[in-house]
Amino acid sequence: MDKAEQAAPGLVNRRAVTIEWGDCDPAGIVFYPRYFAIFDACTAALFQAALGMPKIEWTARHGIAGIPMVDTRGKFAIPSAYGDEVVIESRVTAFRRSSFDVQHRLLKQDGALGVEGFETRVWVARDPADPKRIRAVPIPAEVIAAFG
Amino acid sequence: MDKAEQAAPGLVNRRAVTIEWGDCDPAGIVFYPRYFAIFDACTAALFQAALGMPKIEWTARHGIAGIPMVDTRGKFAIPSAYGDEVVIESRVTAFRRSSFDVQHRLLKQDGALGVEGFETRVWVARDPADPKRIRAVPIPAEVIAAFG
Amino acid sequence: MDKAEQAAPGLVNRRAVTIEWGDCDPAGIVFYPRYFAIFDACTAALFQAALGMPKIEWTARHGIAGIPMVDTRGKFAIPSAYGDEVVIESRVTAFRRSSFDVQHRLLKQDGALGVEGFETRVWVARDPADPKRIRAVPIPAEVIAAFG
Amino acid sequence: MDKAEQAAPGLVNRRAVTIEWGDCDPAGIVFYPRYFAIFDACTAALFQAALGMPKIEWTARHGIAGIPMVDTRGKFAIPSAYGDEVVIESRVTAFRRSSFDVQHRLLKQDGALGVEGFETRVWVARDPADPKRIRAVPIPAEVIAAFG
Repeated sequence: MDKAEQAAPGLVNRRAVTIEWGDCDPAGIVFYPRYFAIFDACTAALFQAALGMPKIEWTARHGIAGIPMVDTRGKFAIPSAYGDEVVIESRVTAFRRSSFDVQHRLLKQDGALGVEGFETRVWVARDPADPKRIRAVPIPAEVIAAFG
Repeated sequence: MDKAEQAAPGLVNRRAVTIEWGDCDPAGIVFYPRYFAIFDACTAALFQAALGMPKIEWTARHGIAGIPMVDTRGKFAIPSAYGDEVVIESRVTAFRRSSFDVQHRLLKQDGALGVEGFETRVWVARDPADPKRIRAVPIPAEVIAAFG
Repeated sequence: MDKAEQAAPGLVNRRAVTIEWGDCDPAGIVFYPRYFAIFDACTAALFQAALGMPKIEWTARHGIAGIPMVDTRGKFAIPSAYGDEVVIESRVTAFRRSSFDVQHRLLKQDGALGVEGFETRVWVARDPADPKRIRAVPIPAEVIAAFG
Repeated sequence: MDKAEQAAPGLVNRRAVTIEWGDCDPAGIVFYPRYFAIFDACTAALFQAALGMPKIEWTARHGIAGIPMVDTRGKFAIPSAYGDEVVIESRVTAFRRSSFDVQHRLLKQDGALGVEGFETRVWVARDPADPKRIRAVPIPAEVIAAFG
């Protein structure tokens, strides 16, 4: 972890995950799209830790349709096999007006960095004029404050 | 195919599917939950063939929330590996007032029966009194008729 | 739980599972193939509880390629939505020479039975004459004994 | 498509994909990890188009364990819903000694760019000294040549 990361303020959520047989491919290692599904659940867990309620409740409370992904990246340094017990550290690295960035670090049992995930998501509501459409809306100050 | 099956009336939809790397597990064969996802898409394709429009349109036209599964079974006779080209034959085997049965037969390249799938689904609409709830409603006669 | 089930001997493994956004479909409820993936992980957890080591170790120790599914069924009584915390109880209901049955009961937060899963699996090893093929082999007595 | 992309030489593989109900989340749009699974299949299809045989055959022929991902990114511009018919254009944008880059462009029915995917993969073989380990090996010249 370099100096910039040490300086990053705020909440870090840690989640223990067991890699399952069904997460893995014929090479015996995690099929990488599964990491993105796992990271999506980690972002939900991070917001639940910050806001004190599950995603289904805080999206309803703030009247939003979700936090869809606009840009995500995964860097895969060390493969994981089924049965591996890993820990994923998740944090928001930036909040902007209606978008924000999340970083995930998957740590192997010996602490080595196995996978890094990066996300840019948008805070969106249904368009009152056309409920089939969604549009970016400002992230409430209290949400940002909850991340410390 | 035995006599009972030959007697089964109506539409049979055939779908060619390539088994992908990501469908397979560390044993190198299809991770069986993937068969259920594939069969779900085959049921959608069967209804599209019968009703002449995609699921998103016929569910809207008939004012239903979907056709959720209440009971499904898979019987796995011969494994498939990634790269295999298989064909899935799907048909409705019974319509009742608000539920129906679907059968899928996954055929290997040599015609052997690899997997059989059985589904019982319900035709459901949102409850007008509580849109978060769904309830079974009668399947329209024109839908049943479309399966010949 | 009726008398027959109370009479069923042996280990029951309980697993708490959070239903995630990515487990759910456009109707807002679990996409049922995900239940089968969750149940597969529950069977692995059940064997880990019985045998005291993860699947990757006990399959290696007993020289088997896995425990592929030959027949599985899911009965879906009450839907679950993302954010739901459920508990899954898993047990082996029968051991035969080289196959066995597993039952899963997904319980909602109020204890109601949401989903039942049934599995018949086979204990298989690679064929020494052709390592690409697998064949059923006898389940070791010590494995059966470990389930009490 | 800008000038740089027009200048990119070689094979472009196009694949028609139907977005299925099970690809979508409670917001009714594709759950983004599914795009990565779809792109993985598109890379396999691209190599099959170039090499004239399925992945299971060309990996065996070249004695490799696979082409694991080391870095991938998705940029999501326009959501897709179930029932959507999209086309994915895939190409190799760079070959290096033992790694290569792939780009995917998911085009909506009106031709608009819905999603872009970027991949960096490695050509790996099992380590003869320890078959549980994989290591990067040079990409054969004939493989590179097959992409024109």
